[in-house]
Amino acid sequence: MKRFAVYMLLVLLAGSGPAAALRGSGDLGLVIERADSSIQIIETSGNTSIGRVDQLGDLSHASAVYSRDARYAYIFGRDGGLSKVDILSGKLVQRKLQSGNSIGGAISQDGRLVAVSNYKPGGVKVFDADTLELVADIPATFGNAQQRSKVIGLVDAPGHKFVFALWDADEIWVLDMSDPANPDITRFKGIGRNPYDALITPDGRYYIAGLFGEDGMALLDLWNLPAGVQRILPQYGKGEAKLPVYKMPHLEGWAVAGDLAFVPAVGRHEVLVINMRNWQQAGRIEVQGQPIFVMARPDGRQVWVNFALPDNDTIQVIDTQSLAVIKQLRPGKGVLHMEFEPRGEEVWLSVRDENRVEIYDTANFELKSSMPANKPSGIFFSARAHRIGL
Amino acid sequence: MKRFAVYMLLVLLAGSGPAAALRGSGDLGLVIERADSSIQIIETSGNTSIGRVDQLGDLSHASAVYSRDARYAYIFGRDGGLSKVDILSGKLVQRKLQSGNSIGGAISQDGRLVAVSNYKPGGVKVFDADTLELVADIPATFGNAQQRSKVIGLVDAPGHKFVFALWDADEIWVLDMSDPANPDITRFKGIGRNPYDALITPDGRYYIAGLFGEDGMALLDLWNLPAGVQRILPQYGKGEAKLPVYKMPHLEGWAVAGDLAFVPAVGRHEVLVINMRNWQQAGRIEVQGQPIFVMARPDGRQVWVNFALPDNDTIQVIDTQSLAVIKQLRPGKGVLHMEFEPRGEEVWLSVRDENRVEIYDTANFELKSSMPANKPSGIFFSARAHRIGL
Repeated sequence: MKRFAVYMLLVLLAGSGPAAALRGSGDLGLVIERADSSIQIIETSGNTSIGRVDQLGDLSHASAVYSRDARYAYIFGRDGGLSKVDILSGKLVQRKLQSGNSIGGAISQDGRLVAVSNYKPGGVKVFDADTLELVADIPATFGNAQQRSKVIGLVDAPGHKFVFALWDADEIWVLDMSDPANPDITRFKGIGRNPYDALITPDGRYYIAGLFGEDGMALLDLWNLPAGVQRILPQYGKGEAKLPVYKMPHLEGWAVAGDLAFVPAVGRHEVLVINMRNWQQAGRIEVQGQPIFVMARPDGRQVWVNFALPDNDTIQVIDTQSLAVIKQLRPGKGVLHMEFEPRGEEVWLSVRDENRVEIYDTANFELKSSMPANKPSGIFFSARAHRIGL
Repeated sequence: MKRFAVYMLLVLLAGSGPAAALRGSGDLGLVIERADSSIQIIETSGNTSIGRVDQLGDLSHASAVYSRDARYAYIFGRDGGLSKVDILSGKLVQRKLQSGNSIGGAISQDGRLVAVSNYKPGGVKVFDADTLELVADIPATFGNAQQRSKVIGLVDAPGHKFVFALWDADEIWVLDMSDPANPDITRFKGIGRNPYDALITPDGRYYIAGLFGEDGMALLDLWNLPAGVQRILPQYGKGEAKLPVYKMPHLEGWAVAGDLAFVPAVGRHEVLVINMRNWQQAGRIEVQGQPIFVMARPDGRQVWVNFALPDNDTIQVIDTQSLAVIKQLRPGKGVLHMEFEPRGEEVWLSVRDENRVEIYDTANFELKSSMPANKPSGIFFSARAHRIGL
């Protein structure tokens, strides 16, 4: 009896360390630490770090999505690695090298499917979110069907859809996975030269791709596919850039506030204001440098902007009513990414070259907290589980 | 040693058990079972019931909000009871009879404070979300300051604010809890006779109260408090009702899709369409009965409507582009409430008189699943933790 009791005690202890304590997963998140191939797991109620998971491969440009129960993060690495991490227990559940080179991914509306956007071989692979088993392999073929295009700008959309663009083929594809055994693809050709990134509006309606090979952007109304792809903002792009373009801005950072979208200009020290009712430019706001991410606080009242070198130590905050810059912060060199807490009271910033993450109060712009992180880049909170297109 | 080991074993066993298994809290929710003073805890990934918590007092008209980690539900009963339930372990953590008669509540932007709207004695009480200790008692005094008004339409707003209306005093108050030790109140007087319910737009900007004592609605722009309360929709209300009003519609059910708000008409078989840019009526949609809840699917493409007696067995679905009724469902007698899964692929309906909850696919309107529930009314999912004004 004594032995059995001690054995049981050890079994129970082994299965119930501090990492496995019962806790809600709604206030969790992760910070990518590229140089260490690791993530830090954080929580936003006390603003603390609660764990680290490493051996996640090449995390350059890595991003993450969350399972519908907000327990698992799917991390998309640059090396084709797809990692499933249990953020409650702080453990790597599974890791799959699913291609030679990939860029980003998405999770389906119902949370059952995870899709990855691949450069090499070009296409999209769709996996079962539970098991990471391959469900569908969608090669991005074009021309004589021997060529394969790099795929960029992969997002989820309502109706169990994924939408993405083909860099080499100048196409946008809508992949309907309502019946996982029979993926249905709608192709839009000749959408403009070299789509390099894309976004979907927060309601999941409009998919917009930026073009590297020419000016303007390609707009697809997912509620009206027969209308096809429309060209908008004919001046948008490098053609109008007054300055050398240090870094193409991230389009997934588009901020939407009411009818207005706030958009990083390419190669200019400006944020553009777009009227989403007619897709015409409605204004320009002069900012400190070349904007990279332009992100709206969840209530849409503020827009936060970070910049390319040499201004990547700076953040500017725009008031969406007056269209004025109302605050400038200097967190330090290498402000790479921002993530708002879901109801917007605080924002987290990665300050890569200072090896820390900073947390600001968005009402008074005070620094609330700071924590060490090794070359932090992307920050992703678990509330993304419940959002369309994230 | 043996005794200690056995003791520890018992301690560990007591603290584990199946209810305490590690799981994410992002796909959880609860269904109010009024007749039993209980809630069912459900999960939306497999659409199953995973527990029940009872002894929650009078749950007529009960509603719930969630802690920022999506672990705890705060349930507001009609008897002044405020109950904190751990939806992960399925246990009642704490219950407080905080007034004689109450109606609804809200949780602050940062999740630290829970506020309850009281009829008797009239006012708002604010509690610490962790301990349920009283943080602030705000009596809704008016006139000679001897009288106290019933409080209705309590919502949270960005900036650690709560907003509510005073039925007897014809006032709207904005309570700023940025400094919990020093609650700051801004009062708006003469906003219209007898505000009976209110809503806040999903961005947390506009607070709108319906008036029982006269026609029209009272609008407060929280981004511009000095502008004061403005009267909108002068025809809205009982004055234009063509039919006896069986039940005043719920305003928190306003659906917002793009620029349009979809609003239950009072006492008419109509849903009104409001242009939120100018707050003018933009259309009327004929429906089956007197609408109660008018709720938008999270992408804003559909609006689902339930009805007062004698049409409370019916649901109609409106397409927000064509403004046409595109589907009619007959789940059964007593369809009291609807809750969309956060990304909108499914919707849950309480069918009170049939003692069941039904779950529909919103793309093809097929019944996906059904589960028994005893006189179910309100349904509340944990993703509400991350939304403004819910």
